[in-house]
Amino acid sequence: MSSGGVVGIDIGGTKMLGVVVDPADPAHPRDERRVPTPHGADALLDAVAELVDVLDPGGRGAVGLGIPGLVDRDDVFRYGPNLPDVVDVAVGPILRERLGRTVVADNDATCATFAEFRAGAGVGHRDGVLLTLGTGIGGGVVVDGEVRHGAYGFAGEPGHMMIDPAGPPCPCGRRGCWERMASGSGLGRLARDGAQAGRLRRAVDLAGGDPEAVRGEHVVAAAREGDHDAGAVLDEFAWWVAAGVANLIDLLDPSVVVLGGGVIDAADVLLHRIEAAVPEQVLARAHRPSVEIAAAHFGATAGAIGAAVLAADAARTGLSP
Amino acid sequence: MSSGGVVGIDIGGTKMLGVVVDPADPAHPRDERRVPTPHGADALLDAVAELVDVLDPGGRGAVGLGIPGLVDRDDVFRYGPNLPDVVDVAVGPILRERLGRTVVADNDATCATFAEFRAGAGVGHRDGVLLTLGTGIGGGVVVDGEVRHGAYGFAGEPGHMMIDPAGPPCPCGRRGCWERMASGSGLGRLARDGAQAGRLRRAVDLAGGDPEAVRGEHVVAAAREGDHDAGAVLDEFAWWVAAGVANLIDLLDPSVVVLGGGVIDAADVLLHRIEAAVPEQVLARAHRPSVEIAAAHFGATAGAIGAAVLAADAARTGLSP
Repeated sequence: MSSGGVVGIDIGGTKMLGVVVDPADPAHPRDERRVPTPHGADALLDAVAELVDVLDPGGRGAVGLGIPGLVDRDDVFRYGPNLPDVVDVAVGPILRERLGRTVVADNDATCATFAEFRAGAGVGHRDGVLLTLGTGIGGGVVVDGEVRHGAYGFAGEPGHMMIDPAGPPCPCGRRGCWERMASGSGLGRLARDGAQAGRLRRAVDLAGGDPEAVRGEHVVAAAREGDHDAGAVLDEFAWWVAAGVANLIDLLDPSVVVLGGGVIDAADVLLHRIEAAVPEQVLARAHRPSVEIAAAHFGATAGAIGAAVLAADAARTGLSP
Repeated sequence: MSSGGVVGIDIGGTKMLGVVVDPADPAHPRDERRVPTPHGADALLDAVAELVDVLDPGGRGAVGLGIPGLVDRDDVFRYGPNLPDVVDVAVGPILRERLGRTVVADNDATCATFAEFRAGAGVGHRDGVLLTLGTGIGGGVVVDGEVRHGAYGFAGEPGHMMIDPAGPPCPCGRRGCWERMASGSGLGRLARDGAQAGRLRRAVDLAGGDPEAVRGEHVVAAAREGDHDAGAVLDEFAWWVAAGVANLIDLLDPSVVVLGGGVIDAADVLLHRIEAAVPEQVLARAHRPSVEIAAAHFGATAGAIGAAVLAADAARTGLSP
């Protein structure tokens, strides 16, 4: 049934999404399964092995894993705040041995970058950046046509770029990391701040009347109705997104910045605001081409599809670190 | 006399430095000349042509130019704040025609990156960043063994990464750009702030007694004598340098960060402070190798030597955009 397919699994902090794809057409999974992410390294490895068996029963298809955190060049998961009880675990090598298949692992947002630049919104661009605006901000960097990993495999963590030394503390230990302002959590904070300051009446209504209960989704819903206060909060949020995007453009000079993650479900009210705010902050904007700002093509499946692309590449080249 | 040599010229805001080098040994120029940078595009092109004739009389050696600002992939100088009367000038193509030589142009800090990673402090590293801490901050990015230019040629401008939205305004139009804090100008500002607040007595003495006259060099001199207040200002400066360096490490995962520019003349009192401050700010420092922080090997000649390396590469490959 799944002969010739490859498996991609996106391991999240609370759930895992697995897909089987035809390597020639990774954008359209043959099958897709969701299971909870268990606690602890051993349980996690068991759950991944089971999910592989369900997705590709009796098969020998290569497996790609996207993991939220630092994955080194030997496919060892080093550390990620969303998997606090899994530290320095040789996920790739252990599962390779256990499953008797090619198994490769990479950072989840780096996997999403493979998906978007191979088969999604980044196709045709040789220099680009992918950003996933979710609970935090993940990233991937494409330079001269290749997804890049850096010296040790850890490239692509723009979310912890310090952008405001007076900003809120970040669990990473710094203050004012970009993801404190420009992620879904950052939008939620702006929403609560606005509601508590007595603005955002419509968003407060949508939240059931309690200013403490206002979240980003209520602001987005109010903005869709044309509410002025909600629009102003989205303008402020877009400014913070653009601040970091401009930093990345100044440094890397991409021709496209692909924005994914849960926040971009609100592309209809957000994308034009971000597109307007980015050029205002880019160095010497009058003397350079404008950079395309694109919504990601793949939604929540980008990480799993990209992990499958990675697996297909490894199976083809025979490279499995 | 200069047969087989290539020419490198670093065009600064006030002076130009030209060198002739043997392509096989770019680190040791055969000759070196300094002339003032004239105002206006025509005068600048004349001065470069004359300098080439002086450095390589009657020769046909290739010429590389390092220019402070945005240079596109067609060797057109787009814009740089230090050459305000030279905008959108096709420096490379015009001089190629006029001199009948191979002429290539690139950003000055990108040239310095060629010098340091081909023959200086970056040798042996495949992923690295070069930063020139001078009046501003220039940069160059090495990924998988190559100096990278981005989609349009403008990659490597970390100095305008916004790092403090409440920081001082930058001539680029943003606020709190990294170079406002972590360049020579940034050190000067910290020095004056400290002196005006009644601290930094020894540095004020060295400046002739006037707190308004205190500059970075006085703080460095006082720190070399062991002055406590001066050391505290250097600690603060090193924190700002490290803040941006950590942002770059999180994003690009280099194995080395090479620091050059005038500020690094004070490496003896600064480098260990920066080395101590960087790991404190890098993401998940306990789970990754530490990144080497190295002082640049070439001082003020890095840009000219790197421009000559660029010229030698272009002469060898026959590529001249």
